[in-house]
Amino acid sequence: MNSVDQLCVNTLRFLAVDAVERARSGHPGMPLGAAPMAYVLWTRFLRHNPRNPAWFNRDRFILSAGHGSALLYALLHLSGYDLPLEELKQFRQWGGMTPGHPEYGHTPGVEATTGPLGQGFAMGVGMALAEQFLARCFNQPGLPLVDHYTYALVSDGDLMEGVASEAASLAGTLRLGRLIYLYDDNHISIEGETDLAFTENVRCRFEAYGWQVLRVADGNDLDGIDTAIRAAQAENQRPSLIIVRTHIGYGSPKQDTADAHGEPLGPMPLRATKEALGWPLEPSFLIPEEALGHFRGAVERGNEWETKWEALRAAYRRKYPELARQLDQAMDGELPAGWDADLPVFRPEERPMATRTASGKVMNALAGRLPGLMGGSADLAPSTRTTLIGYGDLGFDEACGHNVHFGVREHAMAAIVNGMALHGGAIPYGATFLVFSDYMRPALRLAALMQTRAIFIFTHDSIALGEDGPTHQPVEHLMSLRAIPGLTVLRPADANEAAAAWRVAIQRRGPTALVLTRQSVPVLDPHRYPVARGVLRGAYVLAEAENGDPELILVATGSEVHLALAARERLASQGVRARVVSMPSWELFDEQPPEYRRQMLPSRVPRLAMEAGISRGWRDYVGDAGDVIGVDRFGASAPGDVVYEKLGFHVDRVVERALALLRRS
Amino acid sequence: MNSVDQLCVNTLRFLAVDAVERARSGHPGMPLGAAPMAYVLWTRFLRHNPRNPAWFNRDRFILSAGHGSALLYALLHLSGYDLPLEELKQFRQWGGMTPGHPEYGHTPGVEATTGPLGQGFAMGVGMALAEQFLARCFNQPGLPLVDHYTYALVSDGDLMEGVASEAASLAGTLRLGRLIYLYDDNHISIEGETDLAFTENVRCRFEAYGWQVLRVADGNDLDGIDTAIRAAQAENQRPSLIIVRTHIGYGSPKQDTADAHGEPLGPMPLRATKEALGWPLEPSFLIPEEALGHFRGAVERGNEWETKWEALRAAYRRKYPELARQLDQAMDGELPAGWDADLPVFRPEERPMATRTASGKVMNALAGRLPGLMGGSADLAPSTRTTLIGYGDLGFDEACGHNVHFGVREHAMAAIVNGMALHGGAIPYGATFLVFSDYMRPALRLAALMQTRAIFIFTHDSIALGEDGPTHQPVEHLMSLRAIPGLTVLRPADANEAAAAWRVAIQRRGPTALVLTRQSVPVLDPHRYPVARGVLRGAYVLAEAENGDPELILVATGSEVHLALAARERLASQGVRARVVSMPSWELFDEQPPEYRRQMLPSRVPRLAMEAGISRGWRDYVGDAGDVIGVDRFGASAPGDVVYEKLGFHVDRVVERALALLRRS
Repeated sequence: MNSVDQLCVNTLRFLAVDAVERARSGHPGMPLGAAPMAYVLWTRFLRHNPRNPAWFNRDRFILSAGHGSALLYALLHLSGYDLPLEELKQFRQWGGMTPGHPEYGHTPGVEATTGPLGQGFAMGVGMALAEQFLARCFNQPGLPLVDHYTYALVSDGDLMEGVASEAASLAGTLRLGRLIYLYDDNHISIEGETDLAFTENVRCRFEAYGWQVLRVADGNDLDGIDTAIRAAQAENQRPSLIIVRTHIGYGSPKQDTADAHGEPLGPMPLRATKEALGWPLEPSFLIPEEALGHFRGAVERGNEWETKWEALRAAYRRKYPELARQLDQAMDGELPAGWDADLPVFRPEERPMATRTASGKVMNALAGRLPGLMGGSADLAPSTRTTLIGYGDLGFDEACGHNVHFGVREHAMAAIVNGMALHGGAIPYGATFLVFSDYMRPALRLAALMQTRAIFIFTHDSIALGEDGPTHQPVEHLMSLRAIPGLTVLRPADANEAAAAWRVAIQRRGPTALVLTRQSVPVLDPHRYPVARGVLRGAYVLAEAENGDPELILVATGSEVHLALAARERLASQGVRARVVSMPSWELFDEQPPEYRRQMLPSRVPRLAMEAGISRGWRDYVGDAGDVIGVDRFGASAPGDVVYEKLGFHVDRVVERALALLRRS
Repeated sequence: MNSVDQLCVNTLRFLAVDAVERARSGHPGMPLGAAPMAYVLWTRFLRHNPRNPAWFNRDRFILSAGHGSALLYALLHLSGYDLPLEELKQFRQWGGMTPGHPEYGHTPGVEATTGPLGQGFAMGVGMALAEQFLARCFNQPGLPLVDHYTYALVSDGDLMEGVASEAASLAGTLRLGRLIYLYDDNHISIEGETDLAFTENVRCRFEAYGWQVLRVADGNDLDGIDTAIRAAQAENQRPSLIIVRTHIGYGSPKQDTADAHGEPLGPMPLRATKEALGWPLEPSFLIPEEALGHFRGAVERGNEWETKWEALRAAYRRKYPELARQLDQAMDGELPAGWDADLPVFRPEERPMATRTASGKVMNALAGRLPGLMGGSADLAPSTRTTLIGYGDLGFDEACGHNVHFGVREHAMAAIVNGMALHGGAIPYGATFLVFSDYMRPALRLAALMQTRAIFIFTHDSIALGEDGPTHQPVEHLMSLRAIPGLTVLRPADANEAAAAWRVAIQRRGPTALVLTRQSVPVLDPHRYPVARGVLRGAYVLAEAENGDPELILVATGSEVHLALAARERLASQGVRARVVSMPSWELFDEQPPEYRRQMLPSRVPRLAMEAGISRGWRDYVGDAGDVIGVDRFGASAPGDVVYEKLGFHVDRVVERALALLRRS
């Protein structure tokens, strides 16, 4: 290692370790071991512009081993991102820019929120897939506007997580040749040697997935790392995994032990580490001028790259003005004017229609005006109705394709959708049955935390799906999804509410979950009911009591809205004036002004809620005096209409409960 | 194929397909393709006793591809289990014994509930691990009381799921040589050819995990299947995957298409299939005498096996009476007398202690009297405090070990814990941070559906974990876990509540989740407070208002109980009489008689709840007039006490909200 290289690597190491020490909290082991590969990647390969972290064609870098955040912050600061040294000194402190794990949207240059292992790995696959999508749909001969690499630094913990396995297998299938992962192979996990739990042959496993696997025997061998990254770049069909043998806590007395992983070295071991690596003991947070100068070359290079790319873009605009306009909008995340012009309006004369079916029609109508709309299902496209017909498959030839076959990999699907949303240029969706949202939760949570514009489509939304039985019948899922802060959940009651829900999904900042029926439900008359406006507010009066003065309110979501409507009719015939409130989204409703909320659900009127899911949570809307018809048990295998009725979803029961409620009030 | 074999295979095929046809719902494709391997396994290898499905040393068989349930029901009926043919005719109907996917506890001979893909694969690993555990702890020379195989039939969907990848890697590491999986390699998934999403080299991938991989080129080649299973049995270090090339919908007009997968063949194609395979068109549900006789040989063989095993057991009892007593108890799932004699009592004079630490002490105290207690963590044992000290590691030599290193594989951990619980003989636990319960949800749900005695330990239970930040700080998780029907969630307030929570976990039927703090909390005086009894009831009066007549009730769980106690003191100094109710478990509380619940939380007294998680759901306990201090946003990275206070968990705020509540009331 020459002296500048050595100086730079150690600058990274000790900025990170000093930050951890000062915070009295954090992970010093990984930065000490992985600094050399991070250094080589960031100073010799990574095409980025520290002065414009949003430059569209930058290479993406994800620290999937998010616990090594201090290393990333050191890289960002040294490379010239808007992250002052002072912030490194505030590592892991309230109000700072350097949280314990990297957070997207919080620190310039952080491409994804990581920490929960495996997520970064899979989001990187999503970024590479978005790149492939845009490249195939927009690049033209001699004008490769989108052609960056996606890099990640991954740990053994990432590789053990199932979500990474799923994503890796898909990345191999889809031949994401511009995906390059560096594996920090340090042989240590928290419980001890990785051999305790992880003796697999990583090389063979990834070759089996269709990856190119390269190896660097010594993590301090900068030339070796350099050569491997070049070989990875040269391979354009297979993703590359570069296994770099490192030593956790390199240079410290705790080297090669689990103790180096998750707590500060401590003053004496830190001192010993600095001595061992020939680093001045004082001051801490030392940045030698020479090292800074070397790292900051990134600013000028970044400017040049972006300038060159802007020239390419200008040429592209001249030659392909229409495509350029589309691409510009996609990159900016703007919606084209008239994007919703083809949004279908469904008529009650049509036959009853499952909301999943309506959703499929809506998506296909939107696709024509939203060139970024793309995604797929976890091997359930025929059931989730999520194929964009005539828009091709992505990943099998050089053609532009919008449909992704995720395979039976719900978790990776969600993380990949997150990665695609983070990348930009795409409006990605992922679909499966509602019950399998459980497989996706870690990624759904990150979507909510990052506020990605990710659309999750969940069909087969209740016990009414029938014969497949309790393993496939969601019960607790609606409430569990609503529990995630920042996730907007919509459960439309009919085809027109489904169309309105899609409008929300496309327009809203942050992730949305569309929860859709398997079974057919009647189509509400959009001219009679204020469906489109109503959905936007989360809840609305679908059918008012006859004289406008309800003595009872029936609140429902999704398929149960029709039950409420039927009960209202029956009650009317018995002289009871009931209002039906359709409430497709709690989150949207909770955002409304108090006055609107009071109008919809006045506390003086008894309220009966019905939803084919657990009743917990509804108390907020029906009050102490109200009642809830829910499903507080697992379902059962039988035809859908039988299960629905046996578990209490029929007009007689609703009317009975409504009358009992009235008597009590 | 000789004629009896042929007859038996086709009997299986058409029983299954006729059941699907009659139900007008189900999956005919898999049974048609996989019947031959199921036939060979069940009639030539599987050691089981149809007349006693609970025989402890039976081979386990899991249909991981649970959608092929009709095949399993056919096998069970034909082999002589208590599953009448009439029940096959009631496939997927209300009240029947043959639900759409196999359900443990519902149908004799069904070893695990499957359907959500990957779960059966991972539960099988758990069964094999429980077998290994018991074998190493109890078997003696010449007396192998536990030495069965664990088989599963798995599909490409199983192999795509991350949970299966995790479990497979661990099974290789732990050298589960008695695990034998048959892979129904039919090249078809729901969206079409598996090549759309799944081009990996399965053989190389599993060899990389350390498995033996065998291949049968023709799924109808009974001898080939036979030879492969023999080779799998002969390998006692490595788990075996037998890749059997099959044809979905074999013999039908839909053979080798996705259409054969998930819907009845339909009358004409069914007729064509019967013709193609030389089967009488009528009657449906035909069982030729010769086939029945052949299958029913299982009854006599089963009886012989069990009789032989009982003889072995008798010899074991004579030679190792003490071990035999322990093993008997373990197999019966009984708790030894005095199992709780060493349960620690913590004293308030002790320093404040994290409930995770108390839990670790409790577990270690229990281990001495509960020989079946075993489990581990997803590479967080030092943090979750779940090591059983001095009880050895499982899987690395022939010694008895109780500690499992699951690796960073939360999802497989949970499914493996389920498998171990289903197997019996073990009282298994799995531990990680609460936020990562998200990774485990599909398996947690199955635990609840199956009511396995599985113990899930979740530490680092709130924003108070501090610096690791929002990716690691649970917010919605308590409520999401409570949303799962049949899962008992306990969040103890201190060391003594933690001990009582463990008592519940050990004694209760069904799964429990123990939710524990990272940070220290004071120890409540067990002589002053009715902690042990109180926890059993889910909620109890920890500190009554001075005159026994509260004007306010503070309800809290876990670490927030101490905040409530502090607020009560402060309120008392201001002349306000407040009761503190500690509420470690909603599920237990909800089971109490109404009178008890009214006593604890009388509706006439204003109630203020506090919990460091989302407030949704608490309305059921505080009522319209009440108030909730919760966390309805993601957390932040900073020292734990700072985050806790910044997000509103400090006495001033509680007192302020309490007084405001009193003013409103």
